[in-house]
Amino acid sequence: MSYYGFVVIKDFSMKLFEYPDKSEWKEILQRPVLDSRSLDEKVSLVLKEVKMKRDEALREFTSRFDGITIHDFLVSENEILQAKQKVSKELKKAIQIAANNIEKFHIAQKEKSKVITTFSGIKCWRKSVAISKVGLYIPGGTAPLFSTILMLGIPARIAGCEEIVLCTPPDKSGNIHPAILFAADFLKIKKIYKVGGAQAIAAMAYGTESVPQVYKIFGPGNQYVTAAKQLVARDGVAIDMPAGPSEVAVFADKSCVPSFVAADLLSQAEHGNDSQVLLVTNDKKVLEKAKLELDLQLEQLPRKVFAANSLANSKAILVKNIEEGIELINEYAPEHLILQVKNYKRVADKIINAGSVFLGNYTPEAAGDYASGTNHTLPTNGYAKAFSGVSLDSFVKKITFQEISKGGIKKLGPVIETMAEAEELIAHKNAVSLRFRKK
Amino acid sequence: MSYYGFVVIKDFSMKLFEYPDKSEWKEILQRPVLDSRSLDEKVSLVLKEVKMKRDEALREFTSRFDGITIHDFLVSENEILQAKQKVSKELKKAIQIAANNIEKFHIAQKEKSKVITTFSGIKCWRKSVAISKVGLYIPGGTAPLFSTILMLGIPARIAGCEEIVLCTPPDKSGNIHPAILFAADFLKIKKIYKVGGAQAIAAMAYGTESVPQVYKIFGPGNQYVTAAKQLVARDGVAIDMPAGPSEVAVFADKSCVPSFVAADLLSQAEHGNDSQVLLVTNDKKVLEKAKLELDLQLEQLPRKVFAANSLANSKAILVKNIEEGIELINEYAPEHLILQVKNYKRVADKIINAGSVFLGNYTPEAAGDYASGTNHTLPTNGYAKAFSGVSLDSFVKKITFQEISKGGIKKLGPVIETMAEAEELIAHKNAVSLRFRKK
Repeated sequence: MSYYGFVVIKDFSMKLFEYPDKSEWKEILQRPVLDSRSLDEKVSLVLKEVKMKRDEALREFTSRFDGITIHDFLVSENEILQAKQKVSKELKKAIQIAANNIEKFHIAQKEKSKVITTFSGIKCWRKSVAISKVGLYIPGGTAPLFSTILMLGIPARIAGCEEIVLCTPPDKSGNIHPAILFAADFLKIKKIYKVGGAQAIAAMAYGTESVPQVYKIFGPGNQYVTAAKQLVARDGVAIDMPAGPSEVAVFADKSCVPSFVAADLLSQAEHGNDSQVLLVTNDKKVLEKAKLELDLQLEQLPRKVFAANSLANSKAILVKNIEEGIELINEYAPEHLILQVKNYKRVADKIINAGSVFLGNYTPEAAGDYASGTNHTLPTNGYAKAFSGVSLDSFVKKITFQEISKGGIKKLGPVIETMAEAEELIAHKNAVSLRFRKK
Repeated sequence: MSYYGFVVIKDFSMKLFEYPDKSEWKEILQRPVLDSRSLDEKVSLVLKEVKMKRDEALREFTSRFDGITIHDFLVSENEILQAKQKVSKELKKAIQIAANNIEKFHIAQKEKSKVITTFSGIKCWRKSVAISKVGLYIPGGTAPLFSTILMLGIPARIAGCEEIVLCTPPDKSGNIHPAILFAADFLKIKKIYKVGGAQAIAAMAYGTESVPQVYKIFGPGNQYVTAAKQLVARDGVAIDMPAGPSEVAVFADKSCVPSFVAADLLSQAEHGNDSQVLLVTNDKKVLEKAKLELDLQLEQLPRKVFAANSLANSKAILVKNIEEGIELINEYAPEHLILQVKNYKRVADKIINAGSVFLGNYTPEAAGDYASGTNHTLPTNGYAKAFSGVSLDSFVKKITFQEISKGGIKKLGPVIETMAEAEELIAHKNAVSLRFRKK
C-alpha cells in the first residue's frame, strides 16, 4: 500500500491523514486482510476427527493443544462450588449489577405476536420461538472473558433456549478460571465443558458422547475457532456472525475531552496487536492534545506493548467538517463508535453503519463492553454495513403462521390462480382451485 | 441407507412408514445430502474472473453459459415499457393485490425504537437502519419467478434500502421475461441486470463497471448460485440464508380433506425432482384416501414427471397420535408445514421448528407462496431449527446506542472498573476511572 496525499508525523503514534480526498478514503479505511481460509485444511482435519472419533478426538486434541489430558469434560458441581468461593464479593456484586442491566435491555427486545388481517378472511402472524439448542464458546488465555458469558447467556436465557452448552479451554492444570464458572453458574448454565479451539466448535456442531450437538454457535475465538465456525456453518450449523479483530472509531470535535479520547483509543488498542483504532476529528488541536494524552497514558499500561503495536497500525484522520466525518465513518462502518462531539444526537441520527454507538463525553465504550446493558458481541471488519450485533433476535427464529377462512380463499383464490399459472406451477393452482371451486 | 422396521407399499407412490420407533426417526427424516462444495473450485474460478475482469468476464460467462452476447447488462427503460405491454391485465391486477398483502404484513414488522433506562443515568436503545445496498437474484428458466421479486423487493423498499440491484439471466435472445420486468418496475426497482448464475453473484459481491457492489445478496438459484453465495459469504458479503430444495410437511388427521392433502403434496412435488414432501398422519384411512387422490391429480399435471419423481423420494409416516406427530415434525423442521388437523391452533402452539405454518383445511401453501402476505423465502433442509425466513429484519441492521450522564458513569463506574480489572484490561478501566474520578 502506498501512502500519498497525507503527512506521516513521525512522533505521532497513529498514522495521520490530513484532509484526505474522498478518492483516497477506500485505501485509508482498508482493514488488514485476515483470511482464515489458509487454516481450512488443518481445521477441517480437526472437524473430521471429532466427527468420527468424538470424545476420543477431543481428548487427543486437548492433550496436544492445551497440554492436559481431560477425562471428564463436564465441569463438576464440586468444581463450581470451589470456584464460587474464589471469586471476590466485589466481583460477584459487579457481575450481578451488569447482568441486571443486560437483562433489562434484552428483555425489552421481546416482540409481541401481532395478528395482521392482510386481506378479507386472511390472518397472518409471526411468533418468536427460541432456538432450542445453542452453544457458547468462551476463549481461554490469561484473562477470563466472563463478560462474554453474560452477553451470550442472558439473551439465551430470556429467549428460552432449552439447552445451553458452554465450551471453554482448560488451563495446563485442567482448570477453568473461577470467574468463568461463577458467571456461568450465575446464569444457571449447567453444561460447561473443558474443551477449546476448533475441537470445541466441532463438538458442538456434531455432538460427541460428552458434548451435546447444538443448532447455533456463538462466541469469539482465535483464528482456528473462526475458521472452524465458518466451516461448520457450511454444514448448516448457524453461527452468530463472521469474526474479525475488535475496532473503535472515536469522532471528536473541540468539545471533546482529549484525555477521554486517548483513554478510549487505548482501551481498544490494548485488546491485541491487530485491534483497529480510528480517530476522526475536524479539529487539528484535538489531534495534538490527544497525542500528548496517548503518550502519557500509554506509559502506565500493563498491556503497553499490545497497545503501542496496535496504535502504530491505527489512523487519525482530519476531516473538513462534521458532515464529512459522518460520511467517512459510515464508509468505515466501525464496530464501536464513540461520539465526543457537541451535537452528538444530531450526528447519531446520521450514522447508518456501526455496531454500537456511544454518545457524548461520558459514555465510554467500556460501559457497553461490561455493564450498561447493550450487547458487546458486535460486527467488526465493516460487517456493520449488513450485520447487527447479538441481541435477543440471535437466539430465536421467527416462524410465520397463517389461517385462511373458506371465504378468504374464495376471494383471494383467483389472484393465486393467476399468479401460479403465470409461473407455470399448475399443481400450486390446483391446490387453491380445489378449495374454492369445489361444489 | 437401509430401510428396516417399516413396510414399503409398492403401489403407493410415497414411501410408507407405519408407526416407526423414535430410534428410527433420524434415519427416516434424513434429507439427501446436497453439498455444493464439489463445485467450489469451478465457481471460485468464476468469482475470481469477475473480480479481475469485471464486465468483460460477465460478458464471457453469459455468452458461454446463457448462449447470448450481452452488450448492455442494464435493462433499458424501453425494454421495461415493452414488457409492461405484454403482461395481461389480469396478472397485473393479481400482482398488485399480492403486493398489497405482502406490504401490509411486512410493514407491521417495523420496530419502534424504545429508550430503556437500564440503570440510573444510563439510557440504551436500538435503531433499525436499512442495509443501504442489497442485491436480489432471480433465477431464469422456463417459469418466471416474479413472485420472488415481490417477496424480496417489498421488504427492501419498506426497510428503505437505498440501492436495490436485481440480477436475472437473459434468455437465448437476450431478453428477460416480461412478468419479471413488470414486477420489478412495479416496485420501482430500476437497476435490473441481464446476468445470471455464479457470475451474477460475483458481480453483486465485488462490483463491476455495470453492476454495483452490494452488502447483502438475496434469492434462490441453482447449485452454482448456491455455491457462489456461500463463497462470497466467506468474503464477508451477507447472504439471506443457506439454500436447499423446497419442502412441505402436511400433518393430517381424519378431519382433513384428502383431495386438499394430495393437492398440497403435489404443489410441492412439482417444483423439481429434489423437492421434499412429507405426509404425517395418525389415521391410516387418510393415507389410503390421499393415495387415491394423488394418483388422480398427478395424471392431470403438466409437470407430472417432476412431481412423480419427487413423490417417489417422499415419505408418508403413520404416527400413534397427534402428540407424536408434533414431536416428529419438530424433529424434521420443515420449511412449510400445513396443519390439516382438527385442533390446528393447539397443534400450532406446539410447533417450535418450521419456516411457515399453514393452519386448517382452507390454508394451502400456495397462498403463502404468492399472495397472503407472508414471505415465501424460508429456511429449508432443517435450517428452521436455527434460521428464520426472510422478513423486514433481513433488510435492516439494528444498531445499539447509549448515552450516559456524568451521574450515571459515577454510579456504574465502579462496577465497570471491577469487571475490567478482573479481565485484566486496565485501559478499559482507565477509560471509566478518568471520567468519574477526575477532580
